Amino acid sequence: MIVSRLDRAAQGTIQAAMNEAPPTFADVEAAARVLAPAAIRTRLISSPALDERTGARVFLKPEMLQRTGSFKFRGAFNKLSSIPTGQRAAGVVAFSSGNHAQGVAAAAQILNMPATIVMPADAPLSKRERTRGYGAEVVLYDRDKEDREQIARDIASRRGATLVPPFDDPRIIAGQGTVGLEIAEDLLALGAPPDLVSTPASGGGLMAGTAIAIKHHFPNATLMTAEPEGFDDHARSLNSGTRQPHHAEGRTICDALMASIPGEITFAVNQKLVAGGVTATDPEVGTAVAFAFRELKLVVEPGGAVALAALLAGRFDVRGKTVVIVLSGGNVDADLYARLIQQG
Amino acid sequence: MIVSRLDRAAQGTIQAAMNEAPPTFADVEAAARVLAPAAIRTRLISSPALDERTGARVFLKPEMLQRTGSFKFRGAFNKLSSIPTGQRAAGVVAFSSGNHAQGVAAAAQILNMPATIVMPADAPLSKRERTRGYGAEVVLYDRDKEDREQIARDIASRRGATLVPPFDDPRIIAGQGTVGLEIAEDLLALGAPPDLVSTPASGGGLMAGTAIAIKHHFPNATLMTAEPEGFDDHARSLNSGTRQPHHAEGRTICDALMASIPGEITFAVNQKLVAGGVTATDPEVGTAVAFAFRELKLVVEPGGAVALAALLAGRFDVRGKTVVIVLSGGNVDADLYARLIQQG
Repeated sequence: MIVSRLDRAAQGTIQAAMNEAPPTFADVEAAARVLAPAAIRTRLISSPALDERTGARVFLKPEMLQRTGSFKFRGAFNKLSSIPTGQRAAGVVAFSSGNHAQGVAAAAQILNMPATIVMPADAPLSKRERTRGYGAEVVLYDRDKEDREQIARDIASRRGATLVPPFDDPRIIAGQGTVGLEIAEDLLALGAPPDLVSTPASGGGLMAGTAIAIKHHFPNATLMTAEPEGFDDHARSLNSGTRQPHHAEGRTICDALMASIPGEITFAVNQKLVAGGVTATDPEVGTAVAFAFRELKLVVEPGGAVALAALLAGRFDVRGKTVVIVLSGGNVDADLYARLIQQG
Repeated sequence: MIVSRLDRAAQGTIQAAMNEAPPTFADVEAAARVLAPAAIRTRLISSPALDERTGARVFLKPEMLQRTGSFKFRGAFNKLSSIPTGQRAAGVVAFSSGNHAQGVAAAAQILNMPATIVMPADAPLSKRERTRGYGAEVVLYDRDKEDREQIARDIASRRGATLVPPFDDPRIIAGQGTVGLEIAEDLLALGAPPDLVSTPASGGGLMAGTAIAIKHHFPNATLMTAEPEGFDDHARSLNSGTRQPHHAEGRTICDALMASIPGEITFAVNQKLVAGGVTATDPEVGTAVAFAFRELKLVVEPGGAVALAALLAGRFDVRGKTVVIVLSGGNVDADLYARLIQQG
């Protein structure tokens, strides 16, 4: 099946999204109402051990406790809920290394829609199995040789299904923004305005949504992306003021954070609201996963721990400050997890 | 140093406690005020995966998120806070397989009191190290040959220190009761009265305190202890109406749940308020630890997972009911944890 770039654009799904306006704070509030019956309202967690180690007042947003084990359910459910009734029977298609896959699959299951997920063949086994567990059809591809977006678009085109982009979509961003909204609500209740909020970044949807909500309530808060060393497209882009790809060629243990370049919509938001980005090495991420096991008693996947890793590695100036670290997911294979906690 | 049983009784610390009246609901409320500045206010967590699997509405009380990684900090801090100022400099002594040790050590550190903890030489390494990490002196003993209570009493007697019993003390029980108080507050806010509340049981302090608070707010709730198979002294005692030792001779992976017989005060409470007890085998506990890793993303130690294990093994009739399961701690060595999650 040959599909020219123009044809693909004409199919509209992704290109249309890219031309859409970024979500507003009202869109995040609307997403919170959509999510209320389905998502877990996660609560900030504090850890005396972490406060003592960093000299800061640290709050953790534990999104591994979210339905499907990561924040991705939020954006997926908000997006799928917006699909008109008449288009739902044709289902949804998504491409994802794992957490977006589970988010879309679980949201589709709740909304009674068929879902097909295009996943890399080297995605963690647990993520593939869990995606199938939510009733989705999983189509595997070779991360090095095949174009997952094209595979997904072809399937969507054949079936008339709706393509659900992983991050560069206003409703996806608004859904992820409920992470920031809940953080703000919890901090307002505690009377603890944040000095710094950091989230892991891959395509930038979590950071964009979170930034919209945090900046609405706390305009003076500093927002920082955290990325695996080498996969620092957000840090480069925020630094230069234009979207820059990262230059990494290999892998990182942060399998959830391998997007090659920030999204157009997400970067339009982040460029305005986010101060910059930090990175953490794979060994630092492993140490953070082990720290979370030993001291926090929370299961964090490598990609979900990169902001914590940056904090523990001293990448932020936090002494005496109020800091929020988003732990974005906990879907990690037992073998890798066992190795990391025994090393750490 | 030869100390007769009568002499020991005359030293008063433990025996006096045993002759004291059980705490009341007002004592639990008072403990909550004492704990407010120091303890973590843990929030009930729900899991769609667990609800689906059990057919119940399940709430988890995540006490691995408590300071020191288990609920034991609550009772210890409440007890130590009651020691008169003039007696604080002489310090505290406790005997514990690990979680009470950490609770007492951390409470003593906050209250600026010296602490000596008598621990079995085969206690998990992480528990010994963490106890030392809170600034306590750790004295090891041989679980099979030595009497830890006598060792602790001798030290307390020599130093004029206060012995902090692990469970059979009204202030310890009242402190653990804040677990039940917080559960009740969360459920009242949700408008979800519980049908069943189950906690792990060793000496019975957690269950006794929890029962006092739960029954105050929800007199119709059924309370059930959960114990490792063989180490079922609570189930036997509740069944017969008198304190019965368990008949186990070996070990269980639930290192935190090896007390030989219910406490006198704890049993006086539990006999009135608790309906009965269930057990779970070590393999079932291992499965529950792995389930909590995979589905809940919470690090639970074997002893902390025994009520969850009983739930997953079908020991409770929960379909259509509202159920609270206390996950009482998360202090587990990485090697054992790695083995359990890779098996499960």
